[in-house]
Amino acid sequence: MSELTHLDDQGRAHMVDVSGKEATARVATARGRLTCASATLDAVRKGKAPKGAVISTAEIAGIMAAKRTADLIPLCHPLALSKVSVTIAPDDDLPGFAVKAEVRTTGPTGVEMEALTAVSTACLTLFDMLKAIDRTMEISGIRVVSKTGGKSGDWGAVA
Amino acid sequence: MSELTHLDDQGRAHMVDVSGKEATARVATARGRLTCASATLDAVRKGKAPKGAVISTAEIAGIMAAKRTADLIPLCHPLALSKVSVTIAPDDDLPGFAVKAEVRTTGPTGVEMEALTAVSTACLTLFDMLKAIDRTMEISGIRVVSKTGGKSGDWGAVA
Amino acid sequence: MSELTHLDDQGRAHMVDVSGKEATARVATARGRLTCASATLDAVRKGKAPKGAVISTAEIAGIMAAKRTADLIPLCHPLALSKVSVTIAPDDDLPGFAVKAEVRTTGPTGVEMEALTAVSTACLTLFDMLKAIDRTMEISGIRVVSKTGGKSGDWGAVA
Amino acid sequence: MSELTHLDDQGRAHMVDVSGKEATARVATARGRLTCASATLDAVRKGKAPKGAVISTAEIAGIMAAKRTADLIPLCHPLALSKVSVTIAPDDDLPGFAVKAEVRTTGPTGVEMEALTAVSTACLTLFDMLKAIDRTMEISGIRVVSKTGGKSGDWGAVA
Amino acid sequence: MSELTHLDDQGRAHMVDVSGKEATARVATARGRLTCASATLDAVRKGKAPKGAVISTAEIAGIMAAKRTADLIPLCHPLALSKVSVTIAPDDDLPGFAVKAEVRTTGPTGVEMEALTAVSTACLTLFDMLKAIDRTMEISGIRVVSKTGGKSGDWGAVA
Amino acid sequence: MSELTHLDDQGRAHMVDVSGKEATARVATARGRLTCASATLDAVRKGKAPKGAVISTAEIAGIMAAKRTADLIPLCHPLALSKVSVTIAPDDDLPGFAVKAEVRTTGPTGVEMEALTAVSTACLTLFDMLKAIDRTMEISGIRVVSKTGGKSGDWGAVA
Repeated sequence: MSELTHLDDQGRAHMVDVSGKEATARVATARGRLTCASATLDAVRKGKAPKGAVISTAEIAGIMAAKRTADLIPLCHPLALSKVSVTIAPDDDLPGFAVKAEVRTTGPTGVEMEALTAVSTACLTLFDMLKAIDRTMEISGIRVVSKTGGKSGDWGAVA
Repeated sequence: MSELTHLDDQGRAHMVDVSGKEATARVATARGRLTCASATLDAVRKGKAPKGAVISTAEIAGIMAAKRTADLIPLCHPLALSKVSVTIAPDDDLPGFAVKAEVRTTGPTGVEMEALTAVSTACLTLFDMLKAIDRTMEISGIRVVSKTGGKSGDWGAVA
Repeated sequence: MSELTHLDDQGRAHMVDVSGKEATARVATARGRLTCASATLDAVRKGKAPKGAVISTAEIAGIMAAKRTADLIPLCHPLALSKVSVTIAPDDDLPGFAVKAEVRTTGPTGVEMEALTAVSTACLTLFDMLKAIDRTMEISGIRVVSKTGGKSGDWGAVA
Repeated sequence: MSELTHLDDQGRAHMVDVSGKEATARVATARGRLTCASATLDAVRKGKAPKGAVISTAEIAGIMAAKRTADLIPLCHPLALSKVSVTIAPDDDLPGFAVKAEVRTTGPTGVEMEALTAVSTACLTLFDMLKAIDRTMEISGIRVVSKTGGKSGDWGAVA
Repeated sequence: MSELTHLDDQGRAHMVDVSGKEATARVATARGRLTCASATLDAVRKGKAPKGAVISTAEIAGIMAAKRTADLIPLCHPLALSKVSVTIAPDDDLPGFAVKAEVRTTGPTGVEMEALTAVSTACLTLFDMLKAIDRTMEISGIRVVSKTGGKSGDWGAVA
Repeated sequence: MSELTHLDDQGRAHMVDVSGKEATARVATARGRLTCASATLDAVRKGKAPKGAVISTAEIAGIMAAKRTADLIPLCHPLALSKVSVTIAPDDDLPGFAVKAEVRTTGPTGVEMEALTAVSTACLTLFDMLKAIDRTMEISGIRVVSKTGGKSGDWGAVA
């Protein structure tokens, strides 16, 4: 048998059985970033265009994508999410945008994939809105930074 | 007026008008990577589990996500894609997986977002299938590496 | 802090946390109407075309849309609906069609949005099927008429 | 045969054949409104919560819904939209919010349903974000106000 | 290289490149059937329940599924369909229901998969509505019966 | 009143009320098959193309479709699935491919439709990948073979 839980004993991909797992409160937080030219950050922050529209569009896209996670990731279980928030902060040091998502559920599996999907889609949306003025952008640092609930217990990466 | 094309003259987000743009053949290529522990890469490559199942599931997820791009990215135009391919290669030097997507269309807008969405979703799918054995994974380096067709002409980043 | 629950303390849109709310039986009923020319109503009711096809198509569309509510409304929580019914009645007094939807769930949040989305989509479907013969149609009166379950208690508008 | 184009000669619902229709530039504009208590409008406009978040979330939801029209309305043809914009304006005279959507395509059918779906979903999203503070809201006046392109020629309702 | 067009020269699944193929008018017709007990057929045809609701719901489901084909079948190209019709006829000889779908497009690839998906989903919907009274139902005979347009020319199976 | 549970007392289609039903562990298994020419089976099994790519793509498509069941089948309740597996085996005796799906949930309704939708979509995906080399394929034998949990008790067809 494989040590990879998403493969059965013949190496076939399947959605793992969680019917014996208890529904508990679970939280996951993920982070990521879009790096861009300083001038791009300035266009969003200091230009005539209010930063709100770019950032709030990407935040909304991230929230909506969290709800589509099981549609996108083949072996993810569909879950009734109880909270999703996505926060995007311009950051001169990158330069770029720091993205953070927090997702909560009460269910038999964790919500790391929902948090990662929210961060990833928020970054893609920023990229889409800024690509006409910047060809050098890159999405990176997408990772889980903390997780609570479930059998494996609480866990926090260096956030 | 904003220099950001996705905002109108009041800074409101909108889907830009491409009705005056000619439908031309367009190609975009994007890349990204999932870094993980060497042991994780070994589990996929050398273990009892055939690497095929993990990698092919993620490639399929990337292809399907490319077709959902306009559903996920608020201001993306829906497009009839004429080709999508996603290639995932294990890489000992990372260590991790190098992901590449190529998307083609004949239409009035480019397909960078479709290629980026394919790469991003393939990385998320790898993450999902490997997260039970590795908490240190990170998705990074998601960027457009080349683009042909359209008014702005051909363009290639350092691939 | 805003008194608007869908905004956090910085005015940022988010999906509110319902993880502390108890799952209770909830029902919501919504109504709305499509007004049209009398001749349009006659074409549906008295013409050769059986009224069944127009009305039943719109009822089915309303039921299916209720299940898509969390996909459409950015900050709605995904919910496992336990009942959806949509009823469309031709009405000579409008003249037009009166639409009613009832939705039930056992969950931590109410189902008003699901009922409203069902009514709204049923009206849009009627509009689509009749627009070739009537340019004067209008959708109006979409509102919640009653709601039971949840912390805020039972409530009924003038139905 | 029915005079209703969406029914075949046996009264059966079907998606009408547009394969013989020429692809032409088409524009449709729709309007609608959400009426609410004056205090609700004040909470959005004058309160601590920036109006941007409520209004921009609803505008984005409307744009995204326009792209989902063929998924929601059973007999609508899928179309490659070339532009979507949604504009929401607070209006003290209603009191409430006036919503307008404009959609463009180059294709064999019109985009009235896409414009109406955008308006309808934007209204539903406003409703969702404000329902905690106002039980009296109502969505109404959803209609097509102008249409250009296609065999039936240009047409404008009293906007 | 594989003779299977959906695999690249390394046996990897991909969406084949159709960017060099001409957009032509294409039609595909598919058939299938749901067999059931005679008593089930009677319940739909002769009972108090009007047959319309069962059959028209399944026809609508088939039409809507045709539009979702590229979402469901991983390597299918998204297409702008120009016509979809689904016809369900009760058949005492089976006993059961005979299902037929016709799909048209003007595009670079055929629409067999759309017609097959429509038939398949219409059969599944009949199954869903009748499963409470019949455990012996079976879906079978799903196949393409004719196809016109495209490089491979016209073709008709024994319908 | 109709004996068909999906119709109300006026013969109108509706999603039946399951709010009074207890959430219990439920399992459903469905089977089906794609028959093809022997040469087609050989191309998948013995040719240069590794069989893995065709079969694993269809298995993944089946798993993903199970999660979309309530989107496709109008009166199906949305459910949080706890397990989905799809197994495809080449079979020289057919000749063709035998497809089996098992779905589990803890909920108020059964998962037969999810298992049937998984089998059906896996067959459609095989058809799509093989249609370029075989015009004689047919999907058949799609049925529920066993079911446990729920009021109607355990049940097994001849598998």
